[in-house]
Amino acid sequence: MRVMGIDPGYAIVGYGTVEYINNKFYPVEFGAITTKAHTPFEDRLQEVYAGLDEVIKRAKPQAIAIEQLFFTTNQKTVIQVAMARGVILLCAKNNNIPVFEYTPLQIKQSVAGYGKALKKQVMEMTRIMLRLEKVPKPDDTADALAVAICHCHSCRSQLRNIGVQRK
Amino acid sequence: MRVMGIDPGYAIVGYGTVEYINNKFYPVEFGAITTKAHTPFEDRLQEVYAGLDEVIKRAKPQAIAIEQLFFTTNQKTVIQVAMARGVILLCAKNNNIPVFEYTPLQIKQSVAGYGKALKKQVMEMTRIMLRLEKVPKPDDTADALAVAICHCHSCRSQLRNIGVQRK
Repeated sequence: MRVMGIDPGYAIVGYGTVEYINNKFYPVEFGAITTKAHTPFEDRLQEVYAGLDEVIKRAKPQAIAIEQLFFTTNQKTVIQVAMARGVILLCAKNNNIPVFEYTPLQIKQSVAGYGKALKKQVMEMTRIMLRLEKVPKPDDTADALAVAICHCHSCRSQLRNIGVQRK
Repeated sequence: MRVMGIDPGYAIVGYGTVEYINNKFYPVEFGAITTKAHTPFEDRLQEVYAGLDEVIKRAKPQAIAIEQLFFTTNQKTVIQVAMARGVILLCAKNNNIPVFEYTPLQIKQSVAGYGKALKKQVMEMTRIMLRLEKVPKPDDTADALAVAICHCHSCRSQLRNIGVQRK
């Protein structure tokens, strides 16, 4: 299965597509869409949509995985991130790709085997699973790959639970 | 000038377009876009975009006015409203309509003449200014008309401040 993970934002949107075959991960394409500061917010949303639309059409994922958004102490940012997230969900929907959401706990548990794993540990496990030389940069890209891995694991568990033969 | 006010949401998006000529307001069209509960959130975002796109193309406003989003106690809702708001800003941008934001205080001050005016007072003043028989329903529509009025007043003040002849 081919899954694209997305780490939403309005300045940086991390993305990473992985192919998951016989319990092995193969990185397809990963990177980040960036928008310029000091430009109207609507323009940045438009750039996020256009950039992501291009990436989705190129990578053709069967599913998109995205981290659930929670409140942080930086209230101004969370509203802006949520606005970008809305645009990202719209883009997925317009491309007919189903979206799956995971909590930070689920992602850490799935990738590092421990819900309270440190960010660095999750990144290092992501690197190992994808057999990459270095942890992808920026962090948003590594985070996007982690949530993609999480979704693949989650599908595998569900298939196992209902007794379906794994591919 | 022709201004569309929008009260953002994911279940109900209020909108109201007014024409402002010689210090008088003329309602053009107002109403609400509604989306069904118990449908995937991405579907609702898509419906918000499609509905608003239709309304914008029909009313052809020169500007869109929208209330600034602040935190409420209902944290889950504010993130979802922000996501819908992102989609609304994208729709405005894709239609090349500039967006102007106002705080609740600015809207109350502008419409009711008092920053701490009650919601009911703002609605009644909106009704009077637009010479309507009743306060428009749902409340989201009345709120959208209020922010449109606020933008018209704001433009008039700015024109006055820079010594430009009012039309």
